[in-house]
Amino acid sequence: MKIIVIGAAGTIGTAVVEELGRRHDIVAVGKSRGQYQADMTDYAQVQALFGKVGKADAVVVAAGIMALEPLAGMTPERFRVGLNSKLMGQVHVALAAQHALNDGGSITLTSGIDVYHPIRHAANAVTSNAAVEGFVRGAAIELARGIRINAVTPGLLTESKEAYGHLFPGFETVPARRVALAYARSVEGAQTGQIYKVW
Amino acid sequence: MKIIVIGAAGTIGTAVVEELGRRHDIVAVGKSRGQYQADMTDYAQVQALFGKVGKADAVVVAAGIMALEPLAGMTPERFRVGLNSKLMGQVHVALAAQHALNDGGSITLTSGIDVYHPIRHAANAVTSNAAVEGFVRGAAIELARGIRINAVTPGLLTESKEAYGHLFPGFETVPARRVALAYARSVEGAQTGQIYKVW
Repeated sequence: MKIIVIGAAGTIGTAVVEELGRRHDIVAVGKSRGQYQADMTDYAQVQALFGKVGKADAVVVAAGIMALEPLAGMTPERFRVGLNSKLMGQVHVALAAQHALNDGGSITLTSGIDVYHPIRHAANAVTSNAAVEGFVRGAAIELARGIRINAVTPGLLTESKEAYGHLFPGFETVPARRVALAYARSVEGAQTGQIYKVW
Repeated sequence: MKIIVIGAAGTIGTAVVEELGRRHDIVAVGKSRGQYQADMTDYAQVQALFGKVGKADAVVVAAGIMALEPLAGMTPERFRVGLNSKLMGQVHVALAAQHALNDGGSITLTSGIDVYHPIRHAANAVTSNAAVEGFVRGAAIELARGIRINAVTPGLLTESKEAYGHLFPGFETVPARRVALAYARSVEGAQTGQIYKVW
């Protein structure tokens, strides 16, 4: 398969490329790194990306930022950070991919454990990630040509414990290579509309 | 209690006003009807509304539109209809209410059954409603001064069957007066971070 990985240089993306790269052709995409560059918050860039890459069998998104900050000081402008990036960035990829991928292709998006286990300062994250999961469930029953869509919901990565562990008191960590297996389940399996939780 | 009901003239809003109006003072708000007018997609109007109404004990939102249309033709612009109205409209109310309500006050938002039972042409609705539920779960653990937040997730209303029934094949309907009870549970009860499903 030819698999586009958006966010390929990130912690999860690197593990996904390593796992799926053993058996498939990977097209690595990043905002500033990789074989192709695209800012997924800009729909025109996402459409241009699919045009440049040509027909592919799967797209994986492991990218997107959110505003991790106290609810008390949250403004609508800051709240839109997650909606524009983690949510609409991934929705942009899916809207374009439904037309660009080969028949039977797959779209795999990324959510986060906070949807099921909220933490402080994460209202924007929970909202954005829950929206991604809702999109996956809603889109799965409408996609044509056998195209599938799933999301992976990773827990706190072992590799990210030093940077983000203080936000997740008492949470066990999960190594990125275990999370990468869920992306392989989505891409190489046959299910659609699934949320693969890994923690 | 003094309870602000946004969307008071709608099918759910009318039933909520009838149920809660028996025991409480209702402030009816609409985009163009009611005692006060406010377009909740505009944060400045939402803030001005709380300023005009003065201290209240609860706010209920039963309003918000979404783009119900096929995924195949969905554009990012159309997808933002639900995000701007059903999601951000309600988030605007909650962000303002957390500072404007009396201690121990409550915020009650509205989701939809499609989150749990997706239907065709509802990718934007499922996304927006799932996001609202995520926001409720994320915000509940951070709200100060004993302020609570919940969402009601109504099924297809009996009153809306003629207009929307064709979108919900085989779905049983629920009368708005039953849905209104869930809003009363949220406002008059003690729970927070809950999603009350009524169908």
